[in-house]
Amino acid sequence: MQLHEMSIDAFQARLATGEAEPLDWWQTCRERIAAREPEVQAWEFLGPEVEQVPAEGALRGVPVGIKDIIDTCDMPTAWGTGGYLKSDGALVDAAVVTLLQQQGALMMGKTVSTEFAYFTPGKTRNPHDISRTPGGSSSGSAAAVADGMAPLALGTQTAGSIIRPASYCGIYGFKPTFGTVSMAGIKPFAPSLDTLGWFARHIEDICTTYSTLTRAPAIEALPDLSGIRVGVRSLPGDETLSADVIQALRQAHERFEQAGASVFALPLDIRFDALVEHQKVVLAYEAAQSLASEYQRHAHQMGPTLVELIQQGQALTYARYREGQIATAELRQVLSRSFEEEVDVVLAASAPGVAPRGLDATGDPLFCRAWTLLGVPCLNLPIGQGEQGLPVGVQLIGDRYGDDRLLSIARTLMRSPAG
Amino acid sequence: MQLHEMSIDAFQARLATGEAEPLDWWQTCRERIAAREPEVQAWEFLGPEVEQVPAEGALRGVPVGIKDIIDTCDMPTAWGTGGYLKSDGALVDAAVVTLLQQQGALMMGKTVSTEFAYFTPGKTRNPHDISRTPGGSSSGSAAAVADGMAPLALGTQTAGSIIRPASYCGIYGFKPTFGTVSMAGIKPFAPSLDTLGWFARHIEDICTTYSTLTRAPAIEALPDLSGIRVGVRSLPGDETLSADVIQALRQAHERFEQAGASVFALPLDIRFDALVEHQKVVLAYEAAQSLASEYQRHAHQMGPTLVELIQQGQALTYARYREGQIATAELRQVLSRSFEEEVDVVLAASAPGVAPRGLDATGDPLFCRAWTLLGVPCLNLPIGQGEQGLPVGVQLIGDRYGDDRLLSIARTLMRSPAG
Repeated sequence: MQLHEMSIDAFQARLATGEAEPLDWWQTCRERIAAREPEVQAWEFLGPEVEQVPAEGALRGVPVGIKDIIDTCDMPTAWGTGGYLKSDGALVDAAVVTLLQQQGALMMGKTVSTEFAYFTPGKTRNPHDISRTPGGSSSGSAAAVADGMAPLALGTQTAGSIIRPASYCGIYGFKPTFGTVSMAGIKPFAPSLDTLGWFARHIEDICTTYSTLTRAPAIEALPDLSGIRVGVRSLPGDETLSADVIQALRQAHERFEQAGASVFALPLDIRFDALVEHQKVVLAYEAAQSLASEYQRHAHQMGPTLVELIQQGQALTYARYREGQIATAELRQVLSRSFEEEVDVVLAASAPGVAPRGLDATGDPLFCRAWTLLGVPCLNLPIGQGEQGLPVGVQLIGDRYGDDRLLSIARTLMRSPAG
Repeated sequence: MQLHEMSIDAFQARLATGEAEPLDWWQTCRERIAAREPEVQAWEFLGPEVEQVPAEGALRGVPVGIKDIIDTCDMPTAWGTGGYLKSDGALVDAAVVTLLQQQGALMMGKTVSTEFAYFTPGKTRNPHDISRTPGGSSSGSAAAVADGMAPLALGTQTAGSIIRPASYCGIYGFKPTFGTVSMAGIKPFAPSLDTLGWFARHIEDICTTYSTLTRAPAIEALPDLSGIRVGVRSLPGDETLSADVIQALRQAHERFEQAGASVFALPLDIRFDALVEHQKVVLAYEAAQSLASEYQRHAHQMGPTLVELIQQGQALTYARYREGQIATAELRQVLSRSFEEEVDVVLAASAPGVAPRGLDATGDPLFCRAWTLLGVPCLNLPIGQGEQGLPVGVQLIGDRYGDDRLLSIARTLMRSPAG
């Protein structure tokens, strides 16, 4: 197996036996970047060469891409603004940077983000077809991982900024339960929604990163999925799905059944249908507040979609915002009861279809909005194929704080032979 | 009435009639600071002189103290570290600074905070007795407002950092519902708990600031409090209260009854008793994550209480943290049902008693921990007197997102003649 195709645990095993040197993965990724970056354009800034690798840690020698809305001391941060707001180096690294470094990870560089992680695209292209968007807002992180430039990269999700690019780029993308990993040192956009997550090419690497960052026990695969109840339900509902997505969901469905799980259509209370709209309200209201200072100074330099969002948020009443928050708090409990009583994991659409053509937009986060608002863990599985063989993912969703269960089921599923 | 004793609305009325000039309040506060700062030591940094006041805004000409964990461009920020971490000026102001300035408020300076808003005290003294602590972590903001150095000052609360100093300093302190005002540009400590709030000498000013920052309708007083149900319940329970606090609660109780409200002992589910411990767990776990980078570089310069907290947090399991979060989410809904069905406002202890002697500690946030974890709005009423005539507050607590109702009841109560 090529080094850039290896899993984190496999690399650690090679390090332990002396078959690999601590800087091998870093060098392989640098070479890959040198070859591919002119086409893919995943990086805003490449970090300095690493000279020493920490002696220990679950992520020893693992190169990581850092989304460019995450503060770093020894690399600039520009929040996807193209430079109208730019720090040459933060006073303090974002917490997650230190937490990763303490486990031996190596900071490869800053990956391209849309403007403040909203919709104005950066330069990055989809490695599967460079005439298409990689999705956003974590565009560079998804493209870098999909293209073998880094085995692991950080993203954030406020609407669909991890799951959608993971689906478009054909990789795993994981948004853990809201609040799982500290956002300290990451610019807030809509703080009720903003969640740190990560991309990888292996489900095992998603799991290793989760248990490393939370210091929770390692995620084990189950013997099989017998007894596991899979509820199929997209938000918004199934009547809006494209043929590509229906096909990907069917593949996932069959694979679950082959592994012993039972699959059924999950009935959800009619109130869940309002969540997409509530998410838009919460996002706009909070973004208008959070970016008040940036808007005050830089509105004339901002992209029109961001200006429009902030103005929408300014026009919203607090009463409408509150309505969304109160309805959501109630539905979080309703969904938790459903996870307690009738379902182990929800299977849902990740995105409307394959990555759209063009680099002037990053696609629609529609199928992620409600789940992000609910704060539940979401995992994109790179399982389907659409037109021209382009990737179409599906997402698995777990209960709030049920990340370990979700990942364990996913790990078992993806180890099972495909149907 | 002296200018420094005036309410915001009264000052706006004088501006409108030409009886006051826009910079009058600023000048009065500067004079007060010049006279009193050597004793009180509320300020970490005094801002530059203001030369022009915005032409409009609900807070036009109102000087505001900014807690020194809140980013500012034209003033340094040192997060209560005494300088081992210090920014000479942030790239972007914290969102709340811009939101206040857009309403015409004037930034007076940065007020003293404990170290990262935890327990290591700054230099500030209690204006009522300079041998005593003003409380913390928002020490300078509370002392400045209590001493007439500013009519309004910002604080943050993660355990009891607004309510406790307000109680010790004999002023109003308001922690709105979690998430009400953006924390963008404010260093996170425990992001599930950290809440921005403010201090004032008038309940009307607490209300004006709330409706200005949320752009919600103005808070009106009710004709009287008949029909209002006041549930008395401290967390932890009443058996732990000191004589001073019991006396203050009795005064509030009587005043409510005189205004027509009915007062009763609120029964709360036994599970609420676990919230104080859950709050400590959530706080330590999140602080260890959020301050990972600061700890990595500056542990040797940190105060021992902060180091101990971070080490406690590092030793906690994710499973224990999750247990606290899940229990809290459930109890938030239980409490909301109680607000829907049986109670309009909860009356509770703010602090264990009057401000403790000495400047080497800032007192105990015990009686605020559970409410902060629940995310409900809390308002300190400066209503009682303890030994040597020192202030003892009580807090009123409303339902999550029921801030307007809570403030309206408080405004009505405090207008009613004291018993």
